[in-house]
Amino acid sequence: MKPGDYVSLKLTKKEIKGTILESYDNNVVLIKLDSGYNIGVPKINILEVKLIRKAKKIEEKYKLPSGNGKSKIGLIVTGGTIASKLDSMTGGVKALTKVEEFAKIYPKLFEECDIKLNIPFVTMSEDMNYSHWKKLAEEVKKMLDDKSIDGVVITHGSDTLHYTSAILSFMLNVNKPVVLTFSQRSIDRGSSDAELNLQCAAKFARSNCAEVVIVGHATTNDDYCNALRGTKVRKMHTSKRDTFKPINTNPIAKVWSDKIEFISKYNIKNDLAKLDDKFNSKIALIKFYPGQGSEILDYYLEKKYKGIIIEMTGIGQISSSWIPKIKKCVKSGIFIFGTAQTINGSLNPKVYSAGRNLEKAGIIYLKDMLSETAFVKLGWVLGHRNWNVKEKMLENISGEFSDFLTK
Amino acid sequence: MKPGDYVSLKLTKKEIKGTILESYDNNVVLIKLDSGYNIGVPKINILEVKLIRKAKKIEEKYKLPSGNGKSKIGLIVTGGTIASKLDSMTGGVKALTKVEEFAKIYPKLFEECDIKLNIPFVTMSEDMNYSHWKKLAEEVKKMLDDKSIDGVVITHGSDTLHYTSAILSFMLNVNKPVVLTFSQRSIDRGSSDAELNLQCAAKFARSNCAEVVIVGHATTNDDYCNALRGTKVRKMHTSKRDTFKPINTNPIAKVWSDKIEFISKYNIKNDLAKLDDKFNSKIALIKFYPGQGSEILDYYLEKKYKGIIIEMTGIGQISSSWIPKIKKCVKSGIFIFGTAQTINGSLNPKVYSAGRNLEKAGIIYLKDMLSETAFVKLGWVLGHRNWNVKEKMLENISGEFSDFLTK
Repeated sequence: MKPGDYVSLKLTKKEIKGTILESYDNNVVLIKLDSGYNIGVPKINILEVKLIRKAKKIEEKYKLPSGNGKSKIGLIVTGGTIASKLDSMTGGVKALTKVEEFAKIYPKLFEECDIKLNIPFVTMSEDMNYSHWKKLAEEVKKMLDDKSIDGVVITHGSDTLHYTSAILSFMLNVNKPVVLTFSQRSIDRGSSDAELNLQCAAKFARSNCAEVVIVGHATTNDDYCNALRGTKVRKMHTSKRDTFKPINTNPIAKVWSDKIEFISKYNIKNDLAKLDDKFNSKIALIKFYPGQGSEILDYYLEKKYKGIIIEMTGIGQISSSWIPKIKKCVKSGIFIFGTAQTINGSLNPKVYSAGRNLEKAGIIYLKDMLSETAFVKLGWVLGHRNWNVKEKMLENISGEFSDFLTK
Repeated sequence: MKPGDYVSLKLTKKEIKGTILESYDNNVVLIKLDSGYNIGVPKINILEVKLIRKAKKIEEKYKLPSGNGKSKIGLIVTGGTIASKLDSMTGGVKALTKVEEFAKIYPKLFEECDIKLNIPFVTMSEDMNYSHWKKLAEEVKKMLDDKSIDGVVITHGSDTLHYTSAILSFMLNVNKPVVLTFSQRSIDRGSSDAELNLQCAAKFARSNCAEVVIVGHATTNDDYCNALRGTKVRKMHTSKRDTFKPINTNPIAKVWSDKIEFISKYNIKNDLAKLDDKFNSKIALIKFYPGQGSEILDYYLEKKYKGIIIEMTGIGQISSSWIPKIKKCVKSGIFIFGTAQTINGSLNPKVYSAGRNLEKAGIIYLKDMLSETAFVKLGWVLGHRNWNVKEKMLENISGEFSDFLTK
């Protein structure tokens, strides 16, 4: 028996059917059940194996590029768990870098769509920075300009995916779907979310929605995905498959592998794609904690930073002892903005006199914009020398503020 | 009519009954409905006012101290919205500092319990630091040692309440309930949560549960509260009344003003109260963001910090470019610990080789301990010269780790 064979395994108490996957543990047979779920079965528990159907040869299953009137999707691979497989050497995961490897692991995607693959770089998402974001935005732009491509799917490590979805939302004015997806467990592990996420991402990439979204598991089950606005989404669990949650908003849509149910307003496909990938990386994010000294601002002042996001407590508070240093920074030309440590809800400096004093000192309150979104937006805004920084940060450019707060 | 009078107001379409509250807007009558809800009625909308019952004189309603077999509760007031009222001068809120003011605003509490009041300091919670925590722990300890007191209620600003509940959980070994409570809207505002929170806190303080908890609204309705473990709780919304949520755990109990329904295991009242309020304030919390340079560690190294919590992405990742600086810090004697930026879930350095490398460099992974809890625990642990810092940080001292992760 070899990977791809469809088999029946007789165990002590039951019989299971499925397709054999590559297993890096010689003592375990990894099986993809008909439900799509992967399970590992210790060889010692298998009483009998029956071959039901031999694996098709890879070349029979798909041809690259195929055409044949199928929808053409641009697939940009940047690494991450969804583009990895178990590494038998380390027991960890290893990045996939060849189109054949993808086709072997995600055959359904390649069967249904005509895939145009691009791998601009391969990195785990925690190692990404603004230069990766710029490169990625440029590669997406090429696909947005390619009239034969219906939509773009980007696979990406999940850890900083919401930073990337936010910056792409600002750097790009998209004319078709740009869908970031990920997995929490690689495709060759039990209960992987990779297959459903990728299928739903590809489904959404063929829709008429011209937005940057993250598509991933909506629930702890393997049943459907959410499409979440790139500027109002956050990774909210270290390991659960439904880790990405909409913050201060609803999902744009629910997505199954064969249908989409739109929930929120969205932009419709059009001809206008624009790229503006200027970025100033002299920015910082500080999560304020009780007792924190304001001297940390001197550090950023000395290092000639241009902008700082302070993640404030409650509705927008930090220690009043910070006021003199805030004034000093603002006077020196550093822009200081406030976001909410509570993640949910909107800041309001007017409720307490302490908030009014902080606002008077120069902190600009970013209402319900997420810290992560505010951080990347600040780098993007500061990349433009002639822009009014405060005005642009408070302008609702890509749905980063809830509508009711800006009207 | 004056505050305290129970009246019936005839409006255009309906009639409402309730107790008049002090209103700082001359054009609005503020009414506490029988349901406990406060509403403001513009005078212009009132067609007729009927007096149903005159306000009792304050002195008739309660006597301080009263005794009479009533349960004795220690009430420690530290400021915050729950201990504030609207300030007609600024339109903001102003702290209450006299027992008479409390008794006037929270008459039910003083009717039902024999209150021993202590106001060690008055400050908004964003201005608190470890010296406030030490003072507070000392004052609580006195009440734990006072055999006539059944339990302790602490009113506190909500913004950093979860830092305070966590540090009290470490500094104190409690022998009776220690209940922190708060409000998101002051008692004289419409839909204030102050009354229910304080009543439920007082109810819990009379229970047999010897734990440090936060008691506050469980839902967006004004119906019941949760009692939440002091080390596994976080403020999760800037303005909603059910802002405090249990993280990686369940509430200890549901609390109504007249009953308690316990959900989780807890320690029972006993004779053993201990105070250990050592604290080393040379600690920092860094929320890692993509592209962040590791030079920030040099800053803390130069300033002779002793311990750092890094809020990591995903299951425990930061840029691999940080590894040399991490090694340098650890070699210099700084303890570096990792917590999860996703808030929910547990870190695990073993899943990816990147995580294993960071662990090897010296980051100690704090599983599912909250960043805020980890931060205050680190200060407390470092306050003890002879303790093994790593061992103590990984020991489950006050429920800061989920049980299944430490067994």
